[in-house]
Amino acid sequence: MTSRLALIQLAVTASKEANLVNARAKVIEAAEKGAGIVVLPECFNSPYGTSFFPKYAEPLENGPSSIALSNMARDAKVYLIGGSFPEIGPNSKFFNTCTIWGPNGDRLGVHRKVHLFDIDIPGKQTFKESSVLSAGSEITTFDSPIGKIGVGICYDIRFPEMAMIAARKGCIAMIYPGAFNMTTGPLHWELLQRARAIDNQMYVAACSPARDETAGYVAWGHSSVVDPMGQVVAKLGEKEDIVYADLDVAFVETSRANIPVSVQRRFDVYPDVSK
Amino acid sequence: MTSRLALIQLAVTASKEANLVNARAKVIEAAEKGAGIVVLPECFNSPYGTSFFPKYAEPLENGPSSIALSNMARDAKVYLIGGSFPEIGPNSKFFNTCTIWGPNGDRLGVHRKVHLFDIDIPGKQTFKESSVLSAGSEITTFDSPIGKIGVGICYDIRFPEMAMIAARKGCIAMIYPGAFNMTTGPLHWELLQRARAIDNQMYVAACSPARDETAGYVAWGHSSVVDPMGQVVAKLGEKEDIVYADLDVAFVETSRANIPVSVQRRFDVYPDVSK
Repeated sequence: MTSRLALIQLAVTASKEANLVNARAKVIEAAEKGAGIVVLPECFNSPYGTSFFPKYAEPLENGPSSIALSNMARDAKVYLIGGSFPEIGPNSKFFNTCTIWGPNGDRLGVHRKVHLFDIDIPGKQTFKESSVLSAGSEITTFDSPIGKIGVGICYDIRFPEMAMIAARKGCIAMIYPGAFNMTTGPLHWELLQRARAIDNQMYVAACSPARDETAGYVAWGHSSVVDPMGQVVAKLGEKEDIVYADLDVAFVETSRANIPVSVQRRFDVYPDVSK
Repeated sequence: MTSRLALIQLAVTASKEANLVNARAKVIEAAEKGAGIVVLPECFNSPYGTSFFPKYAEPLENGPSSIALSNMARDAKVYLIGGSFPEIGPNSKFFNTCTIWGPNGDRLGVHRKVHLFDIDIPGKQTFKESSVLSAGSEITTFDSPIGKIGVGICYDIRFPEMAMIAARKGCIAMIYPGAFNMTTGPLHWELLQRARAIDNQMYVAACSPARDETAGYVAWGHSSVVDPMGQVVAKLGEKEDIVYADLDVAFVETSRANIPVSVQRRFDVYPDVSK
């Protein structure tokens, strides 16, 4: 049982409307090329930056981005992991939120970024999402035709527990819309995906915006897919593009059978984070 | 605060006596080159294979290998992570056991391999340690002059919990004597070290025997050291050799300060495996 995954490395602009139009065209294109599961990047419809989040934020229910994503998924007949957009949520709090849509346009899940991106590498990269955003508190999975899939956003990938829990609850893939930068991108973007993949013997994909050297926050790009043996099977450069990879459930099962770590864990020695 | 780490990629033979003599010479050599912490490989004094374990097994207390290791550590004035040897332990059970020695010759710790190496990649690599060995049930750390260090053996590295717990209990490094093979070596030896390092922002080192193409189990070699940012800082080829790297506690602290995942974890969303 396989499904073609498409990662859309979108060139994000300051115009929400233009971004929604462009995203729609790319989702339709990916579906025409056989994709059954399509992914958009983190903050696919706004620049990434704390000053932008309140300005671009919209409600989850019946906001323009939710409506557009639902229509894209329905019209392209795909499962759509809709990147993320700044959400104005309960109590007027802001979240970095991923919505997940089915081929009939129904919303299948919502992931509010659990680990906010607060780092300080002096002289290289400083960012504090928590100055504006609130954090979610849920581990998110949804049912696709080839099995359960887990979803995190960007910095969530640095925390192994989310993928461990998702895999132990039956997920065959973990997908992260994300926007690493020119410091952490070359250091850790691929390594973290490969780490999650090999430790959990699942597919891992991360979908970035295209690089825009003129932006305040310059995304690394390099959207990629890693297989359950930890090998990179598809990878983009830095420009706008779509990358495809076939997710093969049999390969997940073979990997787990050959190196059976999933049944060899010593929960008498350490606790099971999924329990 | 730094200490020079040496990994001895020993050419292991079928003669336990010759192996002990060779190991001693290499430990002395490493100390002369400034090493304060010295590591030997998994099964450093016997061939690796289930048929060999009972034949080469010896008790922990006053066996020839323990005596030799204690003397090496004392005479070289180093902290010695004594690879592993087949131990005949309580109730005549066999274990794959790492002993850790201080510069005064005292034994500082014992790690019995917790995760036994049972894998079956058809046509490539099949092994079943559990047909002969029993498993340990402890996570092992010891105090070195630069801080606490955790120890696992080979297949233990595939299970993220051990390094997560060690790091959260204050370890600045995780060291694995190990012997990956010609199938899993190229796939996963380096990736798993880098994964443990970046997720826990600690040094990770793995020390293999030298490759012997005539052996029943052919070790991958490539003993290596990874820094707290996940970068490989020292790496051998396949032949007998010693590799050195300076472990710098300040770099561990800077890595953890810059990308502060260790204080950003969401133990309200998932449990802390170290608790």
